[in-house]
Amino acid sequence: MKALVYHGPGQKSWDTVPDPSPVEPTDIVVQVDTTTICGTDLHILKGDVPAVVDGRILGHEAVGTVTAVGSAVNSIAEGDRVLVPAITSCGRCAYCKRAMPSHCQATGGIGWIFGHLIEGTQAEYARVPFAETSVHKVPEGVADEQVLFLADILPTGYELAAIQTASLAGAASIIALEMADFRLEQALRFGADVAINAADADAEERVAALTDGGLGADVAIEAVGTPGTFDICTRVVRPGGVIANIGVHGAPTTLHLEDLWIKNVTITTGLVDGTTVPLLLQLVRSGKIAADLFGTHDFALGDMMAAYDTFAEAGKHNALKVVIRR
Amino acid sequence: MKALVYHGPGQKSWDTVPDPSPVEPTDIVVQVDTTTICGTDLHILKGDVPAVVDGRILGHEAVGTVTAVGSAVNSIAEGDRVLVPAITSCGRCAYCKRAMPSHCQATGGIGWIFGHLIEGTQAEYARVPFAETSVHKVPEGVADEQVLFLADILPTGYELAAIQTASLAGAASIIALEMADFRLEQALRFGADVAINAADADAEERVAALTDGGLGADVAIEAVGTPGTFDICTRVVRPGGVIANIGVHGAPTTLHLEDLWIKNVTITTGLVDGTTVPLLLQLVRSGKIAADLFGTHDFALGDMMAAYDTFAEAGKHNALKVVIRR
Amino acid sequence: MKALVYHGPGQKSWDTVPDPSPVEPTDIVVQVDTTTICGTDLHILKGDVPAVVDGRILGHEAVGTVTAVGSAVNSIAEGDRVLVPAITSCGRCAYCKRAMPSHCQATGGIGWIFGHLIEGTQAEYARVPFAETSVHKVPEGVADEQVLFLADILPTGYELAAIQTASLAGAASIIALEMADFRLEQALRFGADVAINAADADAEERVAALTDGGLGADVAIEAVGTPGTFDICTRVVRPGGVIANIGVHGAPTTLHLEDLWIKNVTITTGLVDGTTVPLLLQLVRSGKIAADLFGTHDFALGDMMAAYDTFAEAGKHNALKVVIRR
Amino acid sequence: MKALVYHGPGQKSWDTVPDPSPVEPTDIVVQVDTTTICGTDLHILKGDVPAVVDGRILGHEAVGTVTAVGSAVNSIAEGDRVLVPAITSCGRCAYCKRAMPSHCQATGGIGWIFGHLIEGTQAEYARVPFAETSVHKVPEGVADEQVLFLADILPTGYELAAIQTASLAGAASIIALEMADFRLEQALRFGADVAINAADADAEERVAALTDGGLGADVAIEAVGTPGTFDICTRVVRPGGVIANIGVHGAPTTLHLEDLWIKNVTITTGLVDGTTVPLLLQLVRSGKIAADLFGTHDFALGDMMAAYDTFAEAGKHNALKVVIRR
Repeated sequence: MKALVYHGPGQKSWDTVPDPSPVEPTDIVVQVDTTTICGTDLHILKGDVPAVVDGRILGHEAVGTVTAVGSAVNSIAEGDRVLVPAITSCGRCAYCKRAMPSHCQATGGIGWIFGHLIEGTQAEYARVPFAETSVHKVPEGVADEQVLFLADILPTGYELAAIQTASLAGAASIIALEMADFRLEQALRFGADVAINAADADAEERVAALTDGGLGADVAIEAVGTPGTFDICTRVVRPGGVIANIGVHGAPTTLHLEDLWIKNVTITTGLVDGTTVPLLLQLVRSGKIAADLFGTHDFALGDMMAAYDTFAEAGKHNALKVVIRR
Repeated sequence: MKALVYHGPGQKSWDTVPDPSPVEPTDIVVQVDTTTICGTDLHILKGDVPAVVDGRILGHEAVGTVTAVGSAVNSIAEGDRVLVPAITSCGRCAYCKRAMPSHCQATGGIGWIFGHLIEGTQAEYARVPFAETSVHKVPEGVADEQVLFLADILPTGYELAAIQTASLAGAASIIALEMADFRLEQALRFGADVAINAADADAEERVAALTDGGLGADVAIEAVGTPGTFDICTRVVRPGGVIANIGVHGAPTTLHLEDLWIKNVTITTGLVDGTTVPLLLQLVRSGKIAADLFGTHDFALGDMMAAYDTFAEAGKHNALKVVIRR
Repeated sequence: MKALVYHGPGQKSWDTVPDPSPVEPTDIVVQVDTTTICGTDLHILKGDVPAVVDGRILGHEAVGTVTAVGSAVNSIAEGDRVLVPAITSCGRCAYCKRAMPSHCQATGGIGWIFGHLIEGTQAEYARVPFAETSVHKVPEGVADEQVLFLADILPTGYELAAIQTASLAGAASIIALEMADFRLEQALRFGADVAINAADADAEERVAALTDGGLGADVAIEAVGTPGTFDICTRVVRPGGVIANIGVHGAPTTLHLEDLWIKNVTITTGLVDGTTVPLLLQLVRSGKIAADLFGTHDFALGDMMAAYDTFAEAGKHNALKVVIRR
Repeated sequence: MKALVYHGPGQKSWDTVPDPSPVEPTDIVVQVDTTTICGTDLHILKGDVPAVVDGRILGHEAVGTVTAVGSAVNSIAEGDRVLVPAITSCGRCAYCKRAMPSHCQATGGIGWIFGHLIEGTQAEYARVPFAETSVHKVPEGVADEQVLFLADILPTGYELAAIQTASLAGAASIIALEMADFRLEQALRFGADVAINAADADAEERVAALTDGGLGADVAIEAVGTPGTFDICTRVVRPGGVIANIGVHGAPTTLHLEDLWIKNVTITTGLVDGTTVPLLLQLVRSGKIAADLFGTHDFALGDMMAAYDTFAEAGKHNALKVVIRR
């Protein structure tokens, strides 16, 4: 089959590789019908995630059709249409049992294995371990592009950031800080109350002015993965507030504890658990979330390299997420 | 009166200064019967807290006797014996109303003002703002040294660290990392299960071995205020764990977000609120907490400079906290 | 002055009574510009709240203008326009200090005193104890009817019910059960997804059908105050769900512990604390909440008896809340 | 094999029944080495749990040795020594995935199936569904009676009650209300600060006197399962407190909402989830919990009927729990 293969920092190609088949009794294999590229894949290509080795197929998000099932798989059959989420879950370890498969112990302490520790989903087929405790069946009448972004980006945002702000539900004023004009526009379209260009000299002052006369934000969400954006978050958060780090970081940052020790802030980092996928799936079905709005560009699976070109320069192409179809 | 006055980094003296009197109608003045020195005072003397200006009387912990009350003070009378806590609370601002006087807006957004933004308690007398919403009457039959450490160190530990571990109550294995032998002994005496010399080359490996075969600690508490100790905490905490920073920091640290972004950790910083003082006061009364055990050395108020000498070299003197009496 | 006075179950009249003046140094007096009637007032008139004595002026919600201030009041002046909330707070007791003035110990363990333990706000003037820690200044440009419902009904709903559902923010499907057609229509207008007439024989079956194939509601909110509505809540809630009781009850109910003991439900009761009023005030100012929509009928203060007639038969008059103005 | 079989209210016998074998691929069969009797079994015998049918083998707690494994079971082998907990977990349904197997959807919405919906553990052998996601391997060097009570009573107490009080850890004064002298003595031995005979006329007054001058208890735990004990809990809890119901109830109770609506109380009910068993297992291993102290009486498996006689009259026999061994 064909697959997008990582060959060390800066190197990738669309290669011919062996077809996968079930290895463990709890595995399934899916034909990848629709996949996408994550900002994390770009971090991998920058060399930010050294656990990814030369020769690894990338990708950790897919909607697919089951083509083979392991001997211990009972509730999933060939032909089933499933969402393959970024995180797999063994269902048995202490982390999975307390709803934290992000650190599933059965897969080396990290629930994100696709395109990281095992072959990924940017390929014609993919092997999916711990299938019955990991994948979600796609309901009838729901299109691939409606659920594809539930594999990672939507639950990541929801679990790592939105839940932090839940007690302010319907209340919070949402301020988006961005440098790309297109993304500033999109932020407003997706519900931000104010969009501020982070490159503006007075960006932080404007945040201060909008937050109870200078107190700062209740919750500051870092979603880029650079020391600079993390640092802004530590400055615009108010005493007693929360800094939620979502971004993938490839370098250390300076933490100004000489200012923060007295500020009663909470900093959270983390990988998505995916525990909210069933809820998000319901919302997609009932029409309350139009998850397909994230997909701004379409590609065929064979045009994977072009899809990467577009996504890697998302700002230039006014791209949010790309949809890559069989 | 006499008071311990800060004269810039490294400089302090036992000076004659004017007696205080009530300024606002909600003020009281107390005769300081017993006070102590905080690690924060040593940080101030190192220049770590630039808001403290030359000429400031230090100290933010005292048990005293009321000698004057402002015109709006109804429930406190001259002669009352009170605990003056590190944090004052106006009782009216948004932070005080949600039980977070650490950032009282009436005092410039920071509830710790004694020996910081106003004159402190290492003196013969001290003016106490917002008295009725800040001080605690000392019950009959309770000695000064039994409640003195409820001004700061005990609620700080309880609110910023112990509460994090409450869901593990009675369950957690407590590992103390320290470099001073005396403090290692004391840690065991105060309830640690294991005490490890942090200077040992294998200290981190030993923590790993003690925590579910290398997973790491559920909660790592930084209580020193140096980049090195903070950094250890980020390495010995397990995925999904909490790093509670209690230490006063004078310098930034390096935060290894390239490791931590995926580790689902929570970092908390903060100043005590003092909201648990009434609870701790009850526990002292009922004999469940022997708070006076913290006091290892006694000094007369006039020997304040000697008290500082001892506390500044606590390791050499096998000192935990000093008790300084009128 | 004139005031609405309770004279025992079923009895009230618009009487001439003495004008109030400050009693304690922390009191203020306000001229009542706008007030309203609460469902609780109707419960009082039914005899459901025996603590209310013959001769008591009713009412616990008002927007008014300060006409006198006690000697210890510094931050409020004559002429200030203030929201008088249902709950007063001394700011000093253990309950007030942990953001729970609903059980302020300074007022006998109950923060709701207006029209209950002291004279209320359905009058030309009202004395307001603990003014500085209780009232909220009304911002310029905000009309009385925009903030009046922040005295009780809005924070009650928000604190006792909406916060329970916050983790489902934007997610929950809201099902309204009501018997009055007008209120069913209003429920849909205020954001319910489905409105079901509780008198329909299949009402509970329809709730079941709408909640994950019969599992039941995550949160069931009782907002009427009768045994029957409470009982429905216990039947339509799913295992692991929450029953939030908001209604004022005058009689005991039967709790089916033989079904519920195994159902892992949480039942909450309670009086509003009012701690969210500042947040709601901000939302009103920024136009995110149109709190004035609750006011369906207007009356002059002198027509208080007619206002009660309308509100007591709200279903017949298609009334939600009445606005009563000076 | 022999087993304790329920034959309708008041009826049970030690019968010869067919040996079990795996039915589903995820089943195992265990030889029961040690089992016990739960207060719930007595409720069943009173007819309080109508879902239990004539012919059902009772019991939901056991330590056993695996004698057969289903075809899909990989991580458990014949000869393994396992703790069979009261709650089974499929590991895949929405409830299991959020750490709430008490309402596992794979077993009809209730995680407690042994001796309830399927044959139980008071027998020579037992079939255990969903074995890999349900049972716990017993570590070397730990005796049966040290882990037996982790099947139900210890995690039930810990999850449903102790966690409620965790924020008061080390702080709370524990008051035991009991009618049996032996259990009052035991309460003190297990850590209660005060033991009060609930039959004493002044029992409630004494609780009041011990709780901040009449405020009441922060947390009241109902652990009997009668309307009377539940009712006491609602009276002795303070405003803002919690009533944790642990008891199994066979009849409705009267809930005094006319008093409680204004009291801001939280009532929780529930079945154990068993999610704390791994933690408790660690504590047993490290010697921090002496779980075997619960076992006051020993019986051979063949003396099951005598064991019931003793446990059914626990007060008379000064019994806490019985240990029944092969």
